[in-house]
Amino acid sequence: MIKIRRTTLLLPESWMMSKGRVLSIQSHVAFGYVGGKAAVFPLQCLGYDVDVVNTVNFSNHSGYGRFGGSKANASELSTIFSTMEQNGLLRPERLLTGYIPSGDALLAIKDLAVKLRERNPDLLYLLDPVLGDAGKLYVSPDVIPVYQSMLPLATIITPNWFEVEVLTGVHMTDLRTLRQALKILHHEHKVPNVVISSIPLKEWLKSVLPSDIYIPSPLLEAIVEQDYLLCITSSSEDLTPTSSPPSRVHARAVPCIPGYFSGVGDLFSALVLAHFKPSVLPTISNEANCAESNAEPEDALAHAVSHAITKTHAMLTLTQSYAMTLPEDERQPTDDELDENELDRKVRRMKGRELRLIQGQDIIRGLANVENRKMDRWVGFWDDS
Amino acid sequence: MIKIRRTTLLLPESWMMSKGRVLSIQSHVAFGYVGGKAAVFPLQCLGYDVDVVNTVNFSNHSGYGRFGGSKANASELSTIFSTMEQNGLLRPERLLTGYIPSGDALLAIKDLAVKLRERNPDLLYLLDPVLGDAGKLYVSPDVIPVYQSMLPLATIITPNWFEVEVLTGVHMTDLRTLRQALKILHHEHKVPNVVISSIPLKEWLKSVLPSDIYIPSPLLEAIVEQDYLLCITSSSEDLTPTSSPPSRVHARAVPCIPGYFSGVGDLFSALVLAHFKPSVLPTISNEANCAESNAEPEDALAHAVSHAITKTHAMLTLTQSYAMTLPEDERQPTDDELDENELDRKVRRMKGRELRLIQGQDIIRGLANVENRKMDRWVGFWDDS
Repeated sequence: MIKIRRTTLLLPESWMMSKGRVLSIQSHVAFGYVGGKAAVFPLQCLGYDVDVVNTVNFSNHSGYGRFGGSKANASELSTIFSTMEQNGLLRPERLLTGYIPSGDALLAIKDLAVKLRERNPDLLYLLDPVLGDAGKLYVSPDVIPVYQSMLPLATIITPNWFEVEVLTGVHMTDLRTLRQALKILHHEHKVPNVVISSIPLKEWLKSVLPSDIYIPSPLLEAIVEQDYLLCITSSSEDLTPTSSPPSRVHARAVPCIPGYFSGVGDLFSALVLAHFKPSVLPTISNEANCAESNAEPEDALAHAVSHAITKTHAMLTLTQSYAMTLPEDERQPTDDELDENELDRKVRRMKGRELRLIQGQDIIRGLANVENRKMDRWVGFWDDS
Repeated sequence: MIKIRRTTLLLPESWMMSKGRVLSIQSHVAFGYVGGKAAVFPLQCLGYDVDVVNTVNFSNHSGYGRFGGSKANASELSTIFSTMEQNGLLRPERLLTGYIPSGDALLAIKDLAVKLRERNPDLLYLLDPVLGDAGKLYVSPDVIPVYQSMLPLATIITPNWFEVEVLTGVHMTDLRTLRQALKILHHEHKVPNVVISSIPLKEWLKSVLPSDIYIPSPLLEAIVEQDYLLCITSSSEDLTPTSSPPSRVHARAVPCIPGYFSGVGDLFSALVLAHFKPSVLPTISNEANCAESNAEPEDALAHAVSHAITKTHAMLTLTQSYAMTLPEDERQPTDDELDENELDRKVRRMKGRELRLIQGQDIIRGLANVENRKMDRWVGFWDDS
């Protein structure tokens, strides 16, 4: 008797292909979009298989004031990693780590990163050194030296302004100290790709930025209350202190959306990793072209970050537009004193400001018509340094 | 000074809308697609905000032989629920529960389901009573009576053949015992919508099925090794034992894809819940039409299950086609004896058979050209009963 097995679906060739596998190690919340909940769905939409290890399992993010659940300790994390290892399931092409609350847990993740890096020199590791913001630490201080020791393992890091200061010990107040901090990250900590996300565009920064990145307009600033945030990337293949110039620097000023939104950095980092194509590498000649033309930057990091800020900014705009449609008591402005007297005031605001990741999934997929934000070459950044 | 705030994105109206919120309570694995990993991404792709509570955090599913991680105990689950409750974050329109390994944890989830049902009579609760398959229990036996006590809370249940037998105590061997089991679920356990997924199409079933659902062809069966699985739905708004007929029954035979794949039931249940529109309700007149026409079934359950089996079957076909492209040692057939001697043999097979959920996401979104599987009315199911 002849036995024939049938399949009933003819499949496009592309369905057989995978874009690759990301191991994402982050916090998990049941409600809302921070940590893994802000990062995993976008990576999946963009075609990545994502292995998801949860560092905490909480009800909601801590900004609500009330939150509950459990943290995975170092031994629980190590058990998951070692079981995956024994099963041959620890072969990601990309690694993404975010909020990790304790030094012990971070050490377990460092061990993993060391192993993955040894095994695969091409591993793309995006390390988001989540420490705090605007002068305030979110993590236990013993996390800081562990992150410092992990920096040489990373392909890309995405600290905010404050985290750069904590990691480098440099207080950035002018172009000289900004250069100094970048040099420390590239040369001492051996990080090839640095993204400093969301730097408030203070006067000293405005005064040194090339005009294609930011055109100061005192008249406009006087009538339109529009703050800007600056995003800076700095990338270099040569991490020796004598390399000259030390790196390629790109930047983009983006209008600041009023209000505090959680999970934005987690979404941004996931998008940077998703769009990072290491084959997009600059040559000396097209570097100059890129600075002058309007073409997409050829620098792999600037390319990825252009996509990431475009999509993150559109998602934030969508979220803020939605928040504005809510009843007034669900969109109270931030006021620590009032919040302290009435916890639910804060809770309602937080709820209304959760990222609209599901409703805006076409933004993630690049199917929405949104304003492009391109990282432009900061010509002359290292001149006379 | 006039202060104007600008937004820079004009948004389509639909982006402001949410399809609603699902609370999904399931197992979590870092690698692969079972439990929440098989259910959450599809629900998100279909536009639902999903609140995700993890009952376990494991490295991979237990079918690999080796697996590690931790289980959330009842008190951890209750803390998450009560914190969400205090924050006003426990307002899902839909509830989805899957694999819950212990009676204690299940009791915590029952308490939650009771509260959500009391608060919202329109809550759509899909309860997948994960107990086991093919005569083998996966859970502790103390889970069984808890599930039985939870059945009246459910809008839809999706047991497999074995789980129906365990829940009802009826061994199904003919049309009479199948009717008896359905009556027990509808009348004693007060479940309005029952989906019995994947029943092996044995001879007695073939002999009673209407010809539009399955046409027996001994000649074809002799030359093509093609087993079928039957999916049956039974729905009723009147759950009193005297209602006549007791329910509307629909069915569809689907070719069986060789090999064992994990997470299929979890994907299927998520898709049933996603596509269930309670407004699609039958009237006496269009019931008859539906049975005779080729139109989409008007029965809300049959409608949802038609979409769910269409997409699940296409995803399985994709997954199996991919598995066939792997090197031979990664697609060894199931052989318990060989597996026992060499654990990695099983691991390699399991890995190659993980659902291709990411590569096949267009199937989930309804954008792929796949064969439709429509649930047809089983006319005369209750005749002479």
